Amino acid sequence: MKRSELYRHLNVNLDLAVEAHEILRGETGAEVPGVRMDEEIYDHSTVTTITIETDEGVKEMGKPKGRYVTIDAPDIRKNDYDIHHEITQTLAKKIIELMEVNEDASVLLVGLGNWNATPDALGPQVISKSLVTRHLFNYSPDELKGKLRKVSAIAPGVLGLTGIETAEIIRGIVEHVKPNLVIAIDALAAGSLDRIGTSIQLADTGIHPGSGVGNNRTGINEESIGCKVLAIGLPTVVNAAVIAGNCLDVLLDELKTSPTLYKIYKGLNPSFMQGVMEKVLSPYNGNLMVTPKEIDGLIESTAKIIAGALGMSLHPGIDHSDYARYIQ
Amino acid sequence: MKRSELYRHLNVNLDLAVEAHEILRGETGAEVPGVRMDEEIYDHSTVTTITIETDEGVKEMGKPKGRYVTIDAPDIRKNDYDIHHEITQTLAKKIIELMEVNEDASVLLVGLGNWNATPDALGPQVISKSLVTRHLFNYSPDELKGKLRKVSAIAPGVLGLTGIETAEIIRGIVEHVKPNLVIAIDALAAGSLDRIGTSIQLADTGIHPGSGVGNNRTGINEESIGCKVLAIGLPTVVNAAVIAGNCLDVLLDELKTSPTLYKIYKGLNPSFMQGVMEKVLSPYNGNLMVTPKEIDGLIESTAKIIAGALGMSLHPGIDHSDYARYIQ
Amino acid sequence: MKRSELYRHLNVNLDLAVEAHEILRGETGAEVPGVRMDEEIYDHSTVTTITIETDEGVKEMGKPKGRYVTIDAPDIRKNDYDIHHEITQTLAKKIIELMEVNEDASVLLVGLGNWNATPDALGPQVISKSLVTRHLFNYSPDELKGKLRKVSAIAPGVLGLTGIETAEIIRGIVEHVKPNLVIAIDALAAGSLDRIGTSIQLADTGIHPGSGVGNNRTGINEESIGCKVLAIGLPTVVNAAVIAGNCLDVLLDELKTSPTLYKIYKGLNPSFMQGVMEKVLSPYNGNLMVTPKEIDGLIESTAKIIAGALGMSLHPGIDHSDYARYIQ
Amino acid sequence: MKRSELYRHLNVNLDLAVEAHEILRGETGAEVPGVRMDEEIYDHSTVTTITIETDEGVKEMGKPKGRYVTIDAPDIRKNDYDIHHEITQTLAKKIIELMEVNEDASVLLVGLGNWNATPDALGPQVISKSLVTRHLFNYSPDELKGKLRKVSAIAPGVLGLTGIETAEIIRGIVEHVKPNLVIAIDALAAGSLDRIGTSIQLADTGIHPGSGVGNNRTGINEESIGCKVLAIGLPTVVNAAVIAGNCLDVLLDELKTSPTLYKIYKGLNPSFMQGVMEKVLSPYNGNLMVTPKEIDGLIESTAKIIAGALGMSLHPGIDHSDYARYIQ
Repeated sequence: MKRSELYRHLNVNLDLAVEAHEILRGETGAEVPGVRMDEEIYDHSTVTTITIETDEGVKEMGKPKGRYVTIDAPDIRKNDYDIHHEITQTLAKKIIELMEVNEDASVLLVGLGNWNATPDALGPQVISKSLVTRHLFNYSPDELKGKLRKVSAIAPGVLGLTGIETAEIIRGIVEHVKPNLVIAIDALAAGSLDRIGTSIQLADTGIHPGSGVGNNRTGINEESIGCKVLAIGLPTVVNAAVIAGNCLDVLLDELKTSPTLYKIYKGLNPSFMQGVMEKVLSPYNGNLMVTPKEIDGLIESTAKIIAGALGMSLHPGIDHSDYARYIQ
Repeated sequence: MKRSELYRHLNVNLDLAVEAHEILRGETGAEVPGVRMDEEIYDHSTVTTITIETDEGVKEMGKPKGRYVTIDAPDIRKNDYDIHHEITQTLAKKIIELMEVNEDASVLLVGLGNWNATPDALGPQVISKSLVTRHLFNYSPDELKGKLRKVSAIAPGVLGLTGIETAEIIRGIVEHVKPNLVIAIDALAAGSLDRIGTSIQLADTGIHPGSGVGNNRTGINEESIGCKVLAIGLPTVVNAAVIAGNCLDVLLDELKTSPTLYKIYKGLNPSFMQGVMEKVLSPYNGNLMVTPKEIDGLIESTAKIIAGALGMSLHPGIDHSDYARYIQ
Repeated sequence: MKRSELYRHLNVNLDLAVEAHEILRGETGAEVPGVRMDEEIYDHSTVTTITIETDEGVKEMGKPKGRYVTIDAPDIRKNDYDIHHEITQTLAKKIIELMEVNEDASVLLVGLGNWNATPDALGPQVISKSLVTRHLFNYSPDELKGKLRKVSAIAPGVLGLTGIETAEIIRGIVEHVKPNLVIAIDALAAGSLDRIGTSIQLADTGIHPGSGVGNNRTGINEESIGCKVLAIGLPTVVNAAVIAGNCLDVLLDELKTSPTLYKIYKGLNPSFMQGVMEKVLSPYNGNLMVTPKEIDGLIESTAKIIAGALGMSLHPGIDHSDYARYIQ
Repeated sequence: MKRSELYRHLNVNLDLAVEAHEILRGETGAEVPGVRMDEEIYDHSTVTTITIETDEGVKEMGKPKGRYVTIDAPDIRKNDYDIHHEITQTLAKKIIELMEVNEDASVLLVGLGNWNATPDALGPQVISKSLVTRHLFNYSPDELKGKLRKVSAIAPGVLGLTGIETAEIIRGIVEHVKPNLVIAIDALAAGSLDRIGTSIQLADTGIHPGSGVGNNRTGINEESIGCKVLAIGLPTVVNAAVIAGNCLDVLLDELKTSPTLYKIYKGLNPSFMQGVMEKVLSPYNGNLMVTPKEIDGLIESTAKIIAGALGMSLHPGIDHSDYARYIQ
């Protein structure tokens, strides 16, 4: 059984397109048809852009057509001011590339997730640190024109707290506020503990059902809320099944190094091997998400980076020399 | 100048109908036309119901027609479990009397105010402690029928945080959720430091512009959001002008006790006296709201009482023996 | 390589005596010499008492002589008021059995851990919910005698926040407060994800170096602080190596089920197997602790249970009918 | 009755030496003997240094001999990054002038107050934002020498939470940590609503009984804890009596403006006037402290300024160009 199929079987989401792509390439050893990958290297980060261009790519990747930009920056954990500043500027640059709105645009920030559950609190935390300006245009529109965009923001909470599907709430607000763009910020599930708190994904496709840290979320995308959605996500959890899966990989790789063992391994009935894997993974069947114990600090740092990058990219008239200025 | 006029002049809101009524009666020494007052006495609380019945009452009181029930319970500050239980039950009883919805009704709780500013955080705190059930009806509607009502909840934040008028947000949600009743919870401004954290007002009129702790709020009422609104409010601040005004009252009362001074006082040009009052009150002109330093604890206690009473009153099928059971 | 040795090799702590005991018995299939185990069954919990009686037991278990009582209550996760009440009463009963102090005793509660890191915040959260009474004895000592014990409390923070070893801080305070007993509350590391938030360990030995969620902690015990220490701990994290180890166990168990495969299994060079395990576990070498994403809610519930049980057990004169009364 | 006597009579503390001095000078119209005042003007702040030099000064001011530096910066409320940076640098400069310790000194920061009560949470908030380094010297002492001082920190909580006098806790820690200097950070009571969140007082005398927001605090000074104490304080509350007193002042000033009224004013029996004042102020007799409703934001801003200034002044080897770098 392929890893990609196994994950699907176990309801393990890989929210990062870059991870889904890596697994597909690992299995086939070939390019994934209909999917393009580009890479840029910075001092403290690598930016990988996955573009899903065709229906075949959509089918392979299990994600809609569009651009998925991932900033990988393990140095975020160093908690160094200059490194955070560089990553903030990189993210701001990428937001500007993807958002495609004019200077007069109105943008609604939506912080998804639950402020009472640390690993799910990224969205609300970014909202609380973001500069909101839409109401200021009632007082001095001319003065602000060209300097600030109209930014509004909401962190509606999750279904378990509100009793209302988040997409319903957002759609209701969008109908009144009529923004040109929604930017949704959400915590994601990764396929590797390394990526928690260190990879930031930006996608011009919005958020699709089954993504995110909470279960059974409805999508937040143009179809469900009636406005183009840019999604910013950060992995904050992994499925425990992923840890178990990685562990089996090492064992099997090790078996291949001994000729005798490899012969036995090759002789194994594939369905036996699949049975073992399912048994190993069964206690974690799609439900147990884990997070490192340092998660509070990681969320605090990355919420500042995302809020800072939103401030820099959304407000054309202000200076980029210090990201702390953009954080409330 | 009458106290009621002075307050209006200085933009001092008296959100509690019971206080507005008291001042009017104090000035005229007579019943206020078109307004009825009823009182019930409990062990640890007094319940006063002000009913504004006619247009004349509306004009005098500066509030719309309807019922305003105030539970005064100075003992709330004692932080005693049994006292809190009694007050919770009293509030639940009054909510049941005023809400007038059937057992199948869907109710949307709205927590107004700003969770980052303690004296304005009552609404969001009540929401975070409330039992939300609407989404459960997707799974087992028959089992819940008659036991729970469909309760949804939102704490949208304030204009300065969202950039969006709160009424706009609520109206958008109401259009999708279609509740039979909205219950809005908000922090209020009182005319006396004694009432902070100890008086709870329940009104079947919703919330009208100019009320509440934040400035320039839009109303949350049937007209603005398209659904009947029950308002639950608790004073958490007073205007500093109110403290100054109370101080002048004492001085003038004292002057009246001496025949000589009273003669002089009577001889004073009324416009001189008004000038003095304005000068005294001017540094606090409508803007400076103060709160006791114990406000965090008062909000914590009263949010539990209100959330507990909402749980008891909204869910007919559950036991009232312990209010802690209704608090998340 | 035995599991117990492997864990030691990888710096994996098993803070729960009941888990360390289980692994030892699994390996030898025999009683552990010098260690006694007793079990009591309640409606919603099982109480296991491990008593380390001899030096041989100390050596086998890697823990000092004394009693280690574990309350296992998976139902804690159900968030049901009555279940929480029962577990609170069970814990209170066990605290009373172990604390061995008279009615006039002075008790210092110490909440270990870091309030800014959710999985490490149990200790500080229990302190913030606990009833503190020592200062009240300055005002009305006679009235309180026999009803309340003198309880003081401190949550000193962790080395990274204070720059001071926690044992130094506690010793300094103990020298001035001179309590008869210290009760230290701490978050622990478990050997199974199931136990997170559901097992509570009570030990009359204090806390010993290397225990707890934070790294490199100094012990908090009679030797280091100069006062008898009762320790209350709750697992909030597991080492990622534990998940990987469990996964290998399943695989090897599965190999044993087929005669052919068993031959292979037996043919595996033990040093090869050890190499595989080390390789599998190396990315998690003693450092990566994970916690379920629901950790905030689990800590909130269990902190209430522990604070409630402390209130019930420390204050002889008050009614046990409702645990919520003992929580601040 | 003089204002200074009245305040003493009503238990109204004026924690700021600059305010106590102002009242004394207002009453006598002359210099206060034994007290020197110096002033420096900066772009966004005024720095006033009150030096109590003689026993006569001590008696007049009701405060011990020493230097009291107050930075008055109403612009703090503007929440402007550059203004906050300037004030942070000014405070850092003044800390350096007063602390008089060498480069190898060990400094213990003590955050007084209660983290659960917003107006009293300044001390704990500063501690949580401060850079702590003492434990790092165990690993790389040579590398840090000359760059960082050894800084440790504690926020012990208040008597009501711990059951232990704060001075007892600090003394116990000082005996073990043996710092060369303690810097205690505390919330203060001011004599004017204007100063809340905008005046910062630095005193080389420590904290003396009766100061601070909480009642009945013991002093934290060289005598009580055995180590020199520098105190940093920020007013976060005023006594409601102060508001009432200011109101009477305006009224009496107004009476003096008209010849007729002045006659009345002169005719007032001084004991009558004193009776009025006492009656006016009695409801607030020493107990009711109020704070502006914006207190959360004010504490957040000023805690950053103080933590930033502590970082700049205590660590000689790091760059002062950006105060955000010094805040955790």
